[in-house]
Amino acid sequence: MALEERIVATYEFRSSDRSAARRLARRIAVEQTVEMPLSAVRREIRASVVGQLEHLEPLGAGRWRATISYPPELARGELASLLNLLFGNLSLMGGLRLVECHLPPVLMSQFSGPRFGIEGVRRMSGVSVRPLIASAIKPVGLDSLQLAELAYRFARAGVDIVKDDHGLYDQPYAPFAERVARCADAVAKANAETGGRALYFPHVGASHERLEERLTQARAQGCQGVLLAPLLVGPDRFWGLASRGEIAILAHPSFSGAYLERTHGIAPELLLGKFFRLIGADGVIFANVGGRFPVTQATCDAIVRNLTAHWAHLRAAFPVAGGGVDARKVDCWIERYGKDLILLISSSLYARRDLERAARELVERVRRYE
Amino acid sequence: MALEERIVATYEFRSSDRSAARRLARRIAVEQTVEMPLSAVRREIRASVVGQLEHLEPLGAGRWRATISYPPELARGELASLLNLLFGNLSLMGGLRLVECHLPPVLMSQFSGPRFGIEGVRRMSGVSVRPLIASAIKPVGLDSLQLAELAYRFARAGVDIVKDDHGLYDQPYAPFAERVARCADAVAKANAETGGRALYFPHVGASHERLEERLTQARAQGCQGVLLAPLLVGPDRFWGLASRGEIAILAHPSFSGAYLERTHGIAPELLLGKFFRLIGADGVIFANVGGRFPVTQATCDAIVRNLTAHWAHLRAAFPVAGGGVDARKVDCWIERYGKDLILLISSSLYARRDLERAARELVERVRRYE
Repeated sequence: MALEERIVATYEFRSSDRSAARRLARRIAVEQTVEMPLSAVRREIRASVVGQLEHLEPLGAGRWRATISYPPELARGELASLLNLLFGNLSLMGGLRLVECHLPPVLMSQFSGPRFGIEGVRRMSGVSVRPLIASAIKPVGLDSLQLAELAYRFARAGVDIVKDDHGLYDQPYAPFAERVARCADAVAKANAETGGRALYFPHVGASHERLEERLTQARAQGCQGVLLAPLLVGPDRFWGLASRGEIAILAHPSFSGAYLERTHGIAPELLLGKFFRLIGADGVIFANVGGRFPVTQATCDAIVRNLTAHWAHLRAAFPVAGGGVDARKVDCWIERYGKDLILLISSSLYARRDLERAARELVERVRRYE
Repeated sequence: MALEERIVATYEFRSSDRSAARRLARRIAVEQTVEMPLSAVRREIRASVVGQLEHLEPLGAGRWRATISYPPELARGELASLLNLLFGNLSLMGGLRLVECHLPPVLMSQFSGPRFGIEGVRRMSGVSVRPLIASAIKPVGLDSLQLAELAYRFARAGVDIVKDDHGLYDQPYAPFAERVARCADAVAKANAETGGRALYFPHVGASHERLEERLTQARAQGCQGVLLAPLLVGPDRFWGLASRGEIAILAHPSFSGAYLERTHGIAPELLLGKFFRLIGADGVIFANVGGRFPVTQATCDAIVRNLTAHWAHLRAAFPVAGGGVDARKVDCWIERYGKDLILLISSSLYARRDLERAARELVERVRRYE
């Protein structure tokens, strides 16, 4: 079978020399497939099912990169089995990083990817060229009226997407149904006053069947998009909801960071840039350089690239730069990442005395890229 | 509010001195709650919602332990919001380890924990005192008849729980419905011949609504338990299925390992030992010392302790020692972990020429602990 027809995973790890690196790579290929001593595996299964070491190369400084291929039959039809195959038990081994993954056409065809993507979200907001601005209403602890007032002010100022903070669930301070109704009304009122088309995306994270209820409530309030964290609701659940194509979904990286460590886990450009897009995120929030989280410019660049690059039949997903982006530095990010970008800016607006004015200045700055 | 009435989380991290450690601890308390500059947060929210640093102590060698408390309102009714509160954005920070967590009665009352637990699984298998033996049928690649033949041999030998390998999904080699029917029949046949009560636990991991279908199929075949990986189906989904109490669930640690790194993540004894029990795992598979995964004895001891210790109204969950346990060394593990233990042993049996005989010797060894 040609390599393009197989699942191809690239791992990086530390090793003393080539023969030890080869042993570890072969161990990965066995652990992730038959998971038992090869001597006890029938010859035909050894040939057709066990992962194959395709390539091994030194990266210098004692690090190695191994490319291993698996038969697509192992993961057909199931996202969970794909994640299990690529990094299930390996997650327990330590010192291993999954850095790249190729999926063959037979698997790709099972994923429809973003149902709206950059184009769809642009259509909703009526913004065809320039980057979009998103701001979060917060903090948790405010009541629904206070949050709606913030939503109103952001929308008045011209912010394109007003979203719930990802820490807003169904807390007694501002219960979900009440909050969503009030905020959707507030944004509609602002739009009526300004002639704008600001969108309100509530956070629908919830337990069990309540997640469906919240989606229904959000749609009933006219929301065209929502916020959801794949690692908190489960990547599979996220995929299921996104593939129905009823509502746009911004993916939040909460709880995903444990996979993103430098020496073990899954490269952020793969997890956020490819897997989140594969399971249908229309936009993916990532912690940008210079904010509150320790990330590198190369990682952010690679996330943006993977979200927007041509990839089979998948629509491009919006890169959403957040995690402490300074409103005064947006030009730098637009130049770097391009105009197909959502700037998620909240804290640096809240830090200003006049929130609406701060938001308006940001809007004016970004509208120059029309 | 008394500390026992609040959510109390303990984090460990590296810091140069006490004042830097205090700054980092306060940053955690803000990031996980209001997630914005404190100067822009109303006084009443600062007092009632922002996390509070309760305790800070040096651990030596530049490491510090901080105890932070949160109001229970932030996570009431939602598992996802609890995980988000404890480690959501922190997962993105690096160098932070969540090592302990206290949940107040108002939150604990929302979790029923294991619906069967040690006692329930013992009742199913008719084994009241000694440890249980579980073995996995594998490798993936065998057809349903071949897997059923293995299930038959394990059951004939007296293995208590015959389980699917966690890599078995719905692959074309042995499609789920066919495999489960054949294996359930094979185990029933062996039981009829031996007078035994071996159980067959299939792996029901699947995407979207197919997970429900597979549960239904498993129950229709008379299965009293199943295997499922919380991090692959989503902890929330796992909790939802477990809390219905229809079928016992063994939790598999696949894909959880990224959280378990030594300097960043969630301590294994907390994730596997407490959270998996909280969301209803009746048994929790962990990689034991001396097997294929790098774990410490102290970690395994702590996992076993947390699964079985008194904890509010939650039933004890079975520790399931796996990940390469050698059949010849079971006495050592029974002495160490006690009799409330499932020994998950497969590879070291497959490595022997006569599988049924190897399993029978293991069974005889363990039955001495009756």
